[in-house]
Amino acid sequence: MARRAITGFSNPTVKALRALRDKKHRKREGRFLAEGLRLLTDARESGRLPQTLVMAEGRDPHPLLAAIEADVQAGGGDVIETTPDILSKITGKDNAQAVLGVFDEWNTSLEALDREAAQIWLVAQALRDPGNLGTMLRTGDAVGAGGLILIDDCADPFSAEAVRASMGAVFTQAIAQATWAEFLLWLRTGKGQLVAASLREAVPYRGAPYAAPCFILVGNESRGLPADYEAVCDLRVTMPMKGRADSLNAAVAAAVLAYEVLASFEA
Amino acid sequence: MARRAITGFSNPTVKALRALRDKKHRKREGRFLAEGLRLLTDARESGRLPQTLVMAEGRDPHPLLAAIEADVQAGGGDVIETTPDILSKITGKDNAQAVLGVFDEWNTSLEALDREAAQIWLVAQALRDPGNLGTMLRTGDAVGAGGLILIDDCADPFSAEAVRASMGAVFTQAIAQATWAEFLLWLRTGKGQLVAASLREAVPYRGAPYAAPCFILVGNESRGLPADYEAVCDLRVTMPMKGRADSLNAAVAAAVLAYEVLASFEA
Repeated sequence: MARRAITGFSNPTVKALRALRDKKHRKREGRFLAEGLRLLTDARESGRLPQTLVMAEGRDPHPLLAAIEADVQAGGGDVIETTPDILSKITGKDNAQAVLGVFDEWNTSLEALDREAAQIWLVAQALRDPGNLGTMLRTGDAVGAGGLILIDDCADPFSAEAVRASMGAVFTQAIAQATWAEFLLWLRTGKGQLVAASLREAVPYRGAPYAAPCFILVGNESRGLPADYEAVCDLRVTMPMKGRADSLNAAVAAAVLAYEVLASFEA
Repeated sequence: MARRAITGFSNPTVKALRALRDKKHRKREGRFLAEGLRLLTDARESGRLPQTLVMAEGRDPHPLLAAIEADVQAGGGDVIETTPDILSKITGKDNAQAVLGVFDEWNTSLEALDREAAQIWLVAQALRDPGNLGTMLRTGDAVGAGGLILIDDCADPFSAEAVRASMGAVFTQAIAQATWAEFLLWLRTGKGQLVAASLREAVPYRGAPYAAPCFILVGNESRGLPADYEAVCDLRVTMPMKGRADSLNAAVAAAVLAYEVLASFEA
């Protein structure tokens, strides 16, 4: 199958791709955008190929991009060549990258997670900021976590901002979405320590008795975790707060805690 | 001095305040916006009052807001009452908070910093994301850092996004801006260990020989620190990277490192 060229701003494909920036359309179509050769390469190395590859005319040739294009063609996917302006229109950014992939969303149910596959899992409750969510995915990759479990009404992990902030980890970390009740039921059917990053009565995070698989739970950016959620956790830990503020950025709290848990497992 | 009312979208004060969302105007005027009662309260408790206070009609009365208004009036500042729609126009957000302060920017030179006043200082080099910058300020507050030193061309700490992400720490942490050469010259005139969060040859961050005052340096989001910058650091440390990615989010790296340094000083 050859490349096809799109040169018109009002082309229906352009409109359909552009609509994927909007969550409602993304969910209806079950597809999302990932921009840039680096993300696409991360995806490929994680076994994920775009169903549609969009490339800018006049881009610099690159062997990795050629490899992705060959794979997409071999898999029966769509390869589109278009102008940099139309790419910018699709992504909504002035300086769009020269390449864009459209991926099918996937949905990992809790049941599909192998909790024994990793010592650390990150869990976010009602996390609203897609940048924070992407940063948690990136941190999860760094500490060797198995994945990120999204509880209650979180930001969309497939939004452009989350995908970008994840630096490719959206393709490598498992992602599951569940209600609190579903998560608790699943968690208690097997091994697993649930650790809350807490502002309330809690033990110091440093040297706390972590146990694998350890599920590190952080709450909403403004409200933190509901008290009744914290109450059923196996361990509530807190970080020193030396200044005027009473909390850390949620993604920062998750990272400080995750690196402490990792260090305790490696000690 | 009484409150004055502004009811027209085309009022020159509205235009002038709205223009402060733009960096160029902010720098020309030396003023910036901080939104919401919480930020204004943090500012007041840190000894900083807005020169202009803008409040929405129909807001809920609040004793803290009344106290800020009284202070602003006593200090000869301007108090404006306007419609929620005009407040939204100024901030560019659909759901603007009911109160907004306009603050004079301040400029802490390196010479004004008392390096002995804190055991930890954060240093950012060419950090481009204002959210990361604000998050570093917030983390600095949490670990009891003295402040944040911005090297080379960083995002503006007085941008709306940085102010918001700092959660008030923009008012409590010292902020200095300098070139790399200026910073090095200043640093070497006194006590101070310069520690780079490094991707290159480095010792494990855990248990490294940190010494106070410790200056924790993180680099640009895409490029990290220049090799020649790292070369003159006293210590290069690295965090475990268990996954595919080779780096952490800059604000996350600074936080993980800062909490390790804090723990080593308190051990």
